[in-house]
Amino acid sequence: MRYSDPVKRVRIGLLGVGTVGRSVARALVERRDVLSRAAGAPLVLQRAAVRDLSRERGVEPGVLTGDPRSVVQADDVDLVIEVMGGEEPARALIAEALQRKKPVVTANKRVIAWHGPQLAQLAAQRGVELRFEAAVGGGIPLIAPLTDDLAANRVLELRAIINGTTNYILTRMAAGETFESALAQAQKLGYAEADPGDDVDAVDAADKLAILVRIAFGLSCTPAQIFRQGVRGLDPQDLAYGREMGYALKLLATARRTNGKVEARVHPTFVSAEHPLARVDGPRNAVHVVGDLSGPVLFGGLGAGGDATASAVLADVTHVARRLALGDPVEPPRSSVENAELLPMGEVRTRCYLRLAVDDVPGVFAQITRVLADHEIGLASVIQREPATGPADVVLLTYAAHEAAFAQAEAELSRLPCTRAVRARIRVEEART
Amino acid sequence: MRYSDPVKRVRIGLLGVGTVGRSVARALVERRDVLSRAAGAPLVLQRAAVRDLSRERGVEPGVLTGDPRSVVQADDVDLVIEVMGGEEPARALIAEALQRKKPVVTANKRVIAWHGPQLAQLAAQRGVELRFEAAVGGGIPLIAPLTDDLAANRVLELRAIINGTTNYILTRMAAGETFESALAQAQKLGYAEADPGDDVDAVDAADKLAILVRIAFGLSCTPAQIFRQGVRGLDPQDLAYGREMGYALKLLATARRTNGKVEARVHPTFVSAEHPLARVDGPRNAVHVVGDLSGPVLFGGLGAGGDATASAVLADVTHVARRLALGDPVEPPRSSVENAELLPMGEVRTRCYLRLAVDDVPGVFAQITRVLADHEIGLASVIQREPATGPADVVLLTYAAHEAAFAQAEAELSRLPCTRAVRARIRVEEART
Repeated sequence: MRYSDPVKRVRIGLLGVGTVGRSVARALVERRDVLSRAAGAPLVLQRAAVRDLSRERGVEPGVLTGDPRSVVQADDVDLVIEVMGGEEPARALIAEALQRKKPVVTANKRVIAWHGPQLAQLAAQRGVELRFEAAVGGGIPLIAPLTDDLAANRVLELRAIINGTTNYILTRMAAGETFESALAQAQKLGYAEADPGDDVDAVDAADKLAILVRIAFGLSCTPAQIFRQGVRGLDPQDLAYGREMGYALKLLATARRTNGKVEARVHPTFVSAEHPLARVDGPRNAVHVVGDLSGPVLFGGLGAGGDATASAVLADVTHVARRLALGDPVEPPRSSVENAELLPMGEVRTRCYLRLAVDDVPGVFAQITRVLADHEIGLASVIQREPATGPADVVLLTYAAHEAAFAQAEAELSRLPCTRAVRARIRVEEART
Repeated sequence: MRYSDPVKRVRIGLLGVGTVGRSVARALVERRDVLSRAAGAPLVLQRAAVRDLSRERGVEPGVLTGDPRSVVQADDVDLVIEVMGGEEPARALIAEALQRKKPVVTANKRVIAWHGPQLAQLAAQRGVELRFEAAVGGGIPLIAPLTDDLAANRVLELRAIINGTTNYILTRMAAGETFESALAQAQKLGYAEADPGDDVDAVDAADKLAILVRIAFGLSCTPAQIFRQGVRGLDPQDLAYGREMGYALKLLATARRTNGKVEARVHPTFVSAEHPLARVDGPRNAVHVVGDLSGPVLFGGLGAGGDATASAVLADVTHVARRLALGDPVEPPRSSVENAELLPMGEVRTRCYLRLAVDDVPGVFAQITRVLADHEIGLASVIQREPATGPADVVLLTYAAHEAAFAQAEAELSRLPCTRAVRARIRVEEART
């Protein structure tokens, strides 16, 4: 299928003029030459929809409208950029644009995570492109490299720091700060929202992982199917113990092939201090991918911010615009369907870090190790700390076992007479490098 | 311009069946499904040229020939892969393939570094593609991300570890080993050739930097114009002093915009231990790019090896094959010509690390600082070490000054009566992060 005719210039309809939209609009004006060289035709901001017309946006007032549907429906718009965010009406607007045979570039992780496959199918039916480089990892090239540059590979493992807010929080907690204080600082710097739930409860990271596993593993799943645990309730004490043992704590999105299935999960993870991801600090993002030909490949950079996200949006825009300018056939969507299956979380194998508050009475270790042995969990090392007052801290590092075994063992440990509380259970992973 | 007709399968002619060629040939057979899905048509190894027909290659004997020109000229070859390496006859074969309207995928850094612009022009004239993702950084996606994914950016700075051999050597020297011993170990592990000149004298890195600056900065230069200094003669003592000061020593390929021109140079460089490149150890490669929209982006992975390089070659092959399978227009070459100019090395500003062997006599510091002051070189810090015997080591860390000033100062310092020798001058850079 071909776009009807080569176009002389590509007229853009922009949905949303917030942080990202403003950067996109500014770039379309300020770097007209760079973009038109890259796209093979001038890019023109034809229409832009904003929520509140009265606020100044740094966009020529003539193109502004308060009605996003009018942008999608306009005959003088060749390509739609959706950067309004949120699920609705963004999803409906993208669908309508595709229905009207307008290619769409979006930065919307929520919409792509939950509705990507259906929208991609619609795009294919209508013979137009739907691209979303900016939906994961902000300014870091990820979607295109995974799709195209690693096309010859079977991806064996993917480990990603794809939420800058939580990575910033964990970086501060590694320096001894509490979660609450680190979160407050993140909010002050604009790294976290007033309602930080999407970030700190790993909702955002699970959305992004759902997109990545679709592309890298051919696993079609919704974020709801991805095991997800955030960073609330983490104690800086555990980051300190972990460091003593040679580990850094990261909110890691992990996917890997195991027994013919694919694991996909997001949770706080101790990774070896030697792993490249251990050194990704502050609000930065990074994705570590192991292909069966390429070996390990690392992509890192800024996962958020207006300009960085605009860089990814405009890469997609120039890609689509080149085809519009040439009257080129639409890239056929990859029939990526491997029909990979998700491994149930209970069957995932990791090592674990456990911290128990116990009464300092004889036989404590015997009781603990018996519970672990009952579930075939081997013990790799133990640290015991005697506090000035209160119960003792016992820190255990285990060998690999199934998640289901850990869950049962944790419940039993918490019921032991000597146990005051299971203070922490954190998965520990030996990532490929 | 269009490829004549959509093809049902893409028939490949392979030039060279060495380490990379063997990996490519094996992948074409073993991962037929993955590749044909990615390419939109089956890929068939139609012909393969080897230097010595008598050696077993793991390639079906029926496709083997000892005459590479016959591969390029064959009517039943749709696409040529050149992985024989070296300048000639590889260049001539690529040119003949393009002349015959056959798209070419090559891993040949030497040919692309020295003849890339002419070959690209020929490819454009004949309406076919010339791709070379594998020429820099082995399995790391670099050329495509720089060309496409960062298309909206002006690249401000690029710093690269693009020679695995020297990075392995420097990693060992950082642990105290001598250059000679580290080189011997690299040779033993197959990281260095018997004649290691191309690697240790930075010839290879300069070739690759010439390719990168063309793509990232629109600077058209040959490797001969790039300032180049290798790792021979480095002393582990200097790596140790550097570490004390918070720096790691890397053979860094650097390009950046300065005063409307572009610097391009390869030399041992002290980078802050905090910079992501400081932690890239062993034979790995990494490229750190700062775009004016994207901010810093890091690409890392394996810079060499048969399978990693084959991963990049096959990414290019599937890209071209998709277009052949669709009867799609050829991607028009980007008119990237910014006409950027190369900044002469004398005008490059860096900080410097200097180590002098001096007689321990009164007035030494006064003499040294006077020379530096004469050339407007400010002194940031000084370490003096008293050896058990022999002359004292004086280590100086300067503020930024022009390369020309350092060259003159170094010459004058070496002529001071108190100076036994200038043992080392190593550039120190504050890279953007």
